[in-house]
Amino acid sequence: MLTPFDDEFFMKKALDEARIAFDKGEIPVGVVVVIKEKIIARGHNLTEILNDVTAHAEMQAITAAANFLGGKYLRDCTMYATLEPCQMCAGALYWSQLSKLVYAANDLQRGYRTMGAQLHPKTRVKSGILEREAAELLKRFFVQKRNLN
Amino acid sequence: MLTPFDDEFFMKKALDEARIAFDKGEIPVGVVVVIKEKIIARGHNLTEILNDVTAHAEMQAITAAANFLGGKYLRDCTMYATLEPCQMCAGALYWSQLSKLVYAANDLQRGYRTMGAQLHPKTRVKSGILEREAAELLKRFFVQKRNLN
Repeated sequence: MLTPFDDEFFMKKALDEARIAFDKGEIPVGVVVVIKEKIIARGHNLTEILNDVTAHAEMQAITAAANFLGGKYLRDCTMYATLEPCQMCAGALYWSQLSKLVYAANDLQRGYRTMGAQLHPKTRVKSGILEREAAELLKRFFVQKRNLN
Repeated sequence: MLTPFDDEFFMKKALDEARIAFDKGEIPVGVVVVIKEKIIARGHNLTEILNDVTAHAEMQAITAAANFLGGKYLRDCTMYATLEPCQMCAGALYWSQLSKLVYAANDLQRGYRTMGAQLHPKTRVKSGILEREAAELLKRFFVQKRNLN
């Protein structure tokens, strides 16, 4: 059976966001928030352009999704993120009571699991969807940045 | 010697912010960010009014302070917070490389220490300044809220 709106479909949309960040010279991380197979929020990392450490893709998308829903909880939502969230974003997702988090690449240095932060107990987690594509985009960014300096 | 600009002085300013949150029906938490004995940012919790779990006092003040400084790092700054930060706010402070965090009341349920999140290794921490005042304001808020429901 064809399932056009599967995890890979939405992770590709998150990767599109990550590529927008890449083109802006930002560390390429993108997310989308989905409810009932519909994207209700998008976000890409803007920390450099906004001069603001809180401007991670996830943070912007949490605010945008809550705004769309008219309530602060993302209980029936799935967030697709191209990189494992950091402890700040995991902490925000904790408060949002997100239903499901799907992320592509692991962040073994600054990811929430390494740092010790916690998602909400109700949040289901799936990882590794389009991991190679997300990791390659990040690698390409850092190689390019190193060569420019 | 008189030291008008000591930790208590600035924590009182953070408590003023917490009282503004209280009067708006928000969980009363307030912060100020200080550099060289000068307040460069203030914030109070606005999660209910903004319908946004990311609208903690600390998050707003980090963005405002970075905006004032024209750079995203708060390396020479002290944040005064009336409550121990949560893991989201600790995660944001981690990225900001804040020099010093002073907080009043502990949050043994959702504070960053209980949850397992980490501040930046360079951030010095002091707690307990005006703890009683901050804790009483929080207690008064929750008693009042319980009686209204």
